[in-house]
Amino acid sequence: MQGSGLPSKVCRKPIKHLGLKPRMTVGELLAEMEGAGFGAGRLARAVEIYEEMVRSGALILLGLAGAMVPAGMKKVIVEMIRRRMVHIIVSTGANMVHDLLEAFGGAHYKGALTVDDRQLYKWQIDRIYDVYVPEEYFKGFFDEPLLKIFGEIVGEIGGETLSSADLLREIGGRVEDENSIVGNAFKYGVPIFVPAIQDSCIGLLLWEAQAKYGQKPPTIDVVKELDQFFSAVKGAEKLGALIVGGGVPKNYIFQAAFELKKPYDYVIQITMDRPEPGGLSGATLEEAVSWGKVGEKARKVQVISDATICLPLLVAAVMERLEG
Amino acid sequence: MQGSGLPSKVCRKPIKHLGLKPRMTVGELLAEMEGAGFGAGRLARAVEIYEEMVRSGALILLGLAGAMVPAGMKKVIVEMIRRRMVHIIVSTGANMVHDLLEAFGGAHYKGALTVDDRQLYKWQIDRIYDVYVPEEYFKGFFDEPLLKIFGEIVGEIGGETLSSADLLREIGGRVEDENSIVGNAFKYGVPIFVPAIQDSCIGLLLWEAQAKYGQKPPTIDVVKELDQFFSAVKGAEKLGALIVGGGVPKNYIFQAAFELKKPYDYVIQITMDRPEPGGLSGATLEEAVSWGKVGEKARKVQVISDATICLPLLVAAVMERLEG
Amino acid sequence: MQGSGLPSKVCRKPIKHLGLKPRMTVGELLAEMEGAGFGAGRLARAVEIYEEMVRSGALILLGLAGAMVPAGMKKVIVEMIRRRMVHIIVSTGANMVHDLLEAFGGAHYKGALTVDDRQLYKWQIDRIYDVYVPEEYFKGFFDEPLLKIFGEIVGEIGGETLSSADLLREIGGRVEDENSIVGNAFKYGVPIFVPAIQDSCIGLLLWEAQAKYGQKPPTIDVVKELDQFFSAVKGAEKLGALIVGGGVPKNYIFQAAFELKKPYDYVIQITMDRPEPGGLSGATLEEAVSWGKVGEKARKVQVISDATICLPLLVAAVMERLEG
Amino acid sequence: MQGSGLPSKVCRKPIKHLGLKPRMTVGELLAEMEGAGFGAGRLARAVEIYEEMVRSGALILLGLAGAMVPAGMKKVIVEMIRRRMVHIIVSTGANMVHDLLEAFGGAHYKGALTVDDRQLYKWQIDRIYDVYVPEEYFKGFFDEPLLKIFGEIVGEIGGETLSSADLLREIGGRVEDENSIVGNAFKYGVPIFVPAIQDSCIGLLLWEAQAKYGQKPPTIDVVKELDQFFSAVKGAEKLGALIVGGGVPKNYIFQAAFELKKPYDYVIQITMDRPEPGGLSGATLEEAVSWGKVGEKARKVQVISDATICLPLLVAAVMERLEG
Repeated sequence: MQGSGLPSKVCRKPIKHLGLKPRMTVGELLAEMEGAGFGAGRLARAVEIYEEMVRSGALILLGLAGAMVPAGMKKVIVEMIRRRMVHIIVSTGANMVHDLLEAFGGAHYKGALTVDDRQLYKWQIDRIYDVYVPEEYFKGFFDEPLLKIFGEIVGEIGGETLSSADLLREIGGRVEDENSIVGNAFKYGVPIFVPAIQDSCIGLLLWEAQAKYGQKPPTIDVVKELDQFFSAVKGAEKLGALIVGGGVPKNYIFQAAFELKKPYDYVIQITMDRPEPGGLSGATLEEAVSWGKVGEKARKVQVISDATICLPLLVAAVMERLEG
Repeated sequence: MQGSGLPSKVCRKPIKHLGLKPRMTVGELLAEMEGAGFGAGRLARAVEIYEEMVRSGALILLGLAGAMVPAGMKKVIVEMIRRRMVHIIVSTGANMVHDLLEAFGGAHYKGALTVDDRQLYKWQIDRIYDVYVPEEYFKGFFDEPLLKIFGEIVGEIGGETLSSADLLREIGGRVEDENSIVGNAFKYGVPIFVPAIQDSCIGLLLWEAQAKYGQKPPTIDVVKELDQFFSAVKGAEKLGALIVGGGVPKNYIFQAAFELKKPYDYVIQITMDRPEPGGLSGATLEEAVSWGKVGEKARKVQVISDATICLPLLVAAVMERLEG
Repeated sequence: MQGSGLPSKVCRKPIKHLGLKPRMTVGELLAEMEGAGFGAGRLARAVEIYEEMVRSGALILLGLAGAMVPAGMKKVIVEMIRRRMVHIIVSTGANMVHDLLEAFGGAHYKGALTVDDRQLYKWQIDRIYDVYVPEEYFKGFFDEPLLKIFGEIVGEIGGETLSSADLLREIGGRVEDENSIVGNAFKYGVPIFVPAIQDSCIGLLLWEAQAKYGQKPPTIDVVKELDQFFSAVKGAEKLGALIVGGGVPKNYIFQAAFELKKPYDYVIQITMDRPEPGGLSGATLEEAVSWGKVGEKARKVQVISDATICLPLLVAAVMERLEG
Repeated sequence: MQGSGLPSKVCRKPIKHLGLKPRMTVGELLAEMEGAGFGAGRLARAVEIYEEMVRSGALILLGLAGAMVPAGMKKVIVEMIRRRMVHIIVSTGANMVHDLLEAFGGAHYKGALTVDDRQLYKWQIDRIYDVYVPEEYFKGFFDEPLLKIFGEIVGEIGGETLSSADLLREIGGRVEDENSIVGNAFKYGVPIFVPAIQDSCIGLLLWEAQAKYGQKPPTIDVVKELDQFFSAVKGAEKLGALIVGGGVPKNYIFQAAFELKKPYDYVIQITMDRPEPGGLSGATLEEAVSWGKVGEKARKVQVISDATICLPLLVAAVMERLEG
C-alpha cells in the first residue's frame, strides 16, 4: 500500500496494533507490543535484547538505583539471580540495606501519599514515597544483627581490607532468609558492588561500630573494589547491562567499559530521568556511544517508564521466552 | 512483628514482594503488583478501580490525548468499546484523524529516533516520535474520502448544525474498517467528542472544503456539543473516568462534573505529565477534589508511567477479571 | 590548546563559565549564559532568537497553555503585547477565563501545597497547584459580567457568527482593567484564538446562557476561526512562534504552517513535557521539521524548564536588548 | 473583595503579577517573583531562604550532582565559596574531575545535540548532553598531572589513610587555576566530600596508579570520611542545605541529619527529578521530615526546574540582597 515515491527502506514495517485477549500471558502481551511504537515498542525491544543477552552468554551486569526493595521488587531480582539472568550487581547502598532489614526480621508497609509527614515523624515512621518503615526496625532488624556480623567478619579476616563486594558476600553467607537478594547473591556467586557504601546505613554502621561501640569495623578498600570489578568484567566475551534507574550504578557500570575500552554489546535502561538536565542518569545511550561505553553496533534501548512496572514485565516475559 | 509503639492503623499491610512465574497471565502479574508500592502498586489499584467501575454500572468516560493511535493502541480502545468498558470518548482530533487515515486505507510505520528530520522532510515522511507516516497518505487516505463523506452529510442534514460527536457519528457510520475506533464507536453507540476539532486535520478539511473546494462543509456548533455532552452525563447514577494523557480531554471530562455539580466516583489517569508546572494535564486528582470535579470519597489513582505500556496492561487485566 | 587530531570544526567554542556580580541586570546574566551548556545555554539562545524574531519584522505567534495567568504571568504577557513582541495569541480557554475573572474584580491567592483538598472543597476554594481561587468568584466576577456582555454582543451583531477571536475581541473592548491580557489585546489589535473555547468557563457560559438563562448566546463558528487565523498568518514574510507549554496552542500554531506550507522561521518552546510519551506537547522541534511545520534552516530552541521562571527572564532580557 | 464565607486565613495573600522593566536587576526580578505562584514563587522563596540561611550563621552544605562543571557553573560555585555562602561541599566525583581537567589546562566545548555519536566516537570526542570534551584531555590534562600529585601526597603522608575530603584538599593545595572549585575550596577551607570517589576518573586513577603504573596510590578510608563529615556537621547551631540535583550528595547530606538526629533548618533543592519513581533524588522535602532529616519547622523549598538556569539566578539574587 506504500506510495511509489517513498523510500522503501524507511517505511517498511507498518505499526501493528496490539491485540488483547483474556488470560493472555505476559509474554504474549509483550509479543503484541513488538508491533507498536513509543514506550510499548521499546519495552518489547527490551525483551528481545534481554533474551538475546542471556542466550548469547554475555556477562550481565544489573544496576540498581531507586528504592526497588522497599517497593516490592526483591523477589524479581532474586528470580533473576537464580535463573542466571544476572551475574554482577551494582547497587545503591539503600537497596541492600532494605533487603537486609527484611532478612533480619523487619518489613516495609504500604502507606499513603496524602499524609502529614510531621505526624509520621512523631510516630517514628519513615516514608519512602508510599511505603512506610518504622524507624525502630533500623535498630532491631538492622544495626544489632549486622553489628554482630561485623564482629564475626573482623574476627575471621583480621586486619585484611575488604571491597564492598567482599563485605556484602560475607554478610550474604550469614543471611538465612531465602528471599534475600544479598543471601541469594552469595549462594549463586553473584558479587554485589556498592560503590558509595558510606552513603547508606551499612556505611553508617561501619562508622558507629568504631565511634559508638568501640568495635573495630571491617576496613573497606575502594581500590580493591575497582580491581575486583574490573577483573570480573575484563575477561567477558560479551558484555550486557540492565540498568534500573541511573545514579552511581549506571555510571559505575559504564566506567568499566570506558576504563577497559570494552564497550557494552547489550544495554537496557529503565528510567524516568530526562536527558536535558545533563546528568548521566538520564543521558541517552547514544551519548554513551561517543565515550566508547556502549558499542557502535550494540543492541540497546531506553525505556522511559516506571521501573516497578516495567522490570517485572521484562523479566516475566524473558522467563517465558527462555522456557518456551 | 510490628513494634508496640507504632500506630497500628498506619503500618498494617506489609509490602508483599511480587513473585514471577513463567507463562503467568497479565491478570496474575497485576494481582502480584497489589502488594507492591510505587508505580506497580498504583497500576494494580487502577485495575481494581477499573473493574469496580465496570461492575458498578457507572457511566465511563475515556479521555484520549497523545498520539495513541499512531503508537498502535487502536485495537485496545476498540476492545474497550466492544466490551462496554467505555461509554463516551473525549479525544484530541489527532487520534481520530489517524484512526480514519488507517480506516481509509493508510498506515503508520515503525521508524527510528536517530534520524535526520530534514531528510524525512525531503522524503515527505512525517514523524511522530518513532512512528512515520507518509505525507501523501493525508491526501489519498484522508482528505479525499472524508471530503466525499462531508458532501454526503451536508446533503442529508441540509442546513442543520452538528456537534463534533454528531460529525464523528456520521463519519463512523460510513467507515467499513472493522478495527476502526470511529467505526466501532458508531456501531456500539459510543459518542466521540472532539472539543478542539478545528485543531486537527478534520478541522482543516472543514476549512478546505469551503476555502479550496467551494463545497459547503458541515457546520459545527460548540454549544450543541456541550448540550449533548452534559445530557449524556447528567443522568448517570455513577460516573467514572479513565484518562489517558491530559490536555483538553482531561479538562473537558472534569468540567462536566464541575458544571453539573456531579463529581466523579472513579478516576484513573495514566500520564507522564508532572504537577509542578501547574497545568491541568499533570495536576493531581486530589486537586480536582477541591473543585468538586472528583468526589471526596471517590476511588482514584494516578499512574505516572508510559500509557502505551500501562493502558494495554490495565485493559487486559480487567478483561481477565471480568471474564474470570 | 586543542589537540591536533581533533576535528577543529567540532571543538571550537569553549564553554565559558558564567560569572556573577551583584546588581547585574537580567540581560547581563543572560549574556553570561551564552557561554554555558544545558538549559542555561538554551535559554540564552532563546534570548538571541527572540530578539532577532522581533527585529526581523516576523509575525510572532504566542502559544499559551498551562495556568500562566493564575500563576502571575499576566503582566509579562501584557508587556509583550504593548511592546509589539507578539502579534497573535493562541491560548487555552482557561488563561483567558482567569484573566477576565481578575479584570471583572476577582483575584487569585497564594496557597499551600500540603493542604487537604477535601477541606478546600468544603470552603469552596478551588486549587490550581499552589494558587487558590474562591469558587464564588466565578459567579460574581465572571458569569454575571460576561453574561451581560454576551447580551450586548448578540444585540449588536444579530444572527452573525463569530470566531473565538471575534468573541475575545468583543469582550476585550468592554474590559476596563488596564492590566488585562484580553483588554490590551483588543487595544493593540492582537487577536486571541481559543480553539477549544467550549473547554473553558467561557464555553460553559455560552451553554448556560441558552440552557439556563434562556438568553441567546453568540454563535461560534470554527471554520470562520480557521479562516481568520490562516488569513492572518499567510501574508507574513517571516513567521515566529514563542510557545509556552504545549497542548492545543502548540498544535494549532504549527498546523497553520502545515496547512499553508509555510514553515516557521523562528521557534522557541518553553516546556516541561517530555518527547518519549509521543504526544505533540513534548515533541522536539526537529520532529516538526519533518512535517514542514518548522523550516529546515529555522532558528529554534526548546527550553526544558519552568515557564513561570523562564518566560519572565526571556522577556526581560529581550526588552533590555531591544532598548539597549 | 474577599467573600464573607471564605476562611480568611486561607485566601489572604493575592497573587501579585510580576512586572518587568528594562535593565532590571536579577534581584529585582526575583523580588517580583515573590508574588507569583508555581516555579516562580518557589524560586523567590528559595532566594529568601538562602539569604536567611547565610545571615543566620547556619553551616551551609552544598550538594552537587549532575554535570554542573561541564555546563559552565564553575564560577558560580567559586563565587559561593569566596562569599562564604557555602561551608561544606558534597559532590559526585565527576564534577571535581571536570573542574580539575580545566584546572590542569583542558577545556570543554559547546557542542550540538543532533550529532551522530558514532562519528564523535571516531573523533574521540566525549559528549555530555550538548557539551564536548576531547578524550585525549583526560590523559594530558588529568591523568598525568594528577598521578604526579598522587606521588607527592603519598610521599608526604606515608602510609596514612585519607578521606575523600583529605584527598581533595591535598589536590586543591596544588592547583593554581584561580577559577577552580577544588583550588578555591582549599584556599577558603571548604571541605569537599566525594562519597563515591571510586565512581569517577579520580577513582580510576587511584586504581591505575597501582595496577598500571606500579605506583602506590593514596589509601582512601570511608569510615574516616564519615567521621570527618559528622564532626564538621555536629557542632553547628543551625544547619542549611542547598542541593543541586539529587543522587548520592542529597542522600549523604541528609543522612548526617538522620545519624546525628539533627534535622536541617533550611533546605533548598533544585532538581528535575520526580517523586513518583520513589527514589530519593526526586523525593519531596516533606518526605524527609518523616525521617527527621528536615525539621518540622524548617524553611524549605523544592524548585523543579533546570539547575543551570536557577542556580545562577538564586546566587546572583542573594548576592545582591546581601550587599544591598
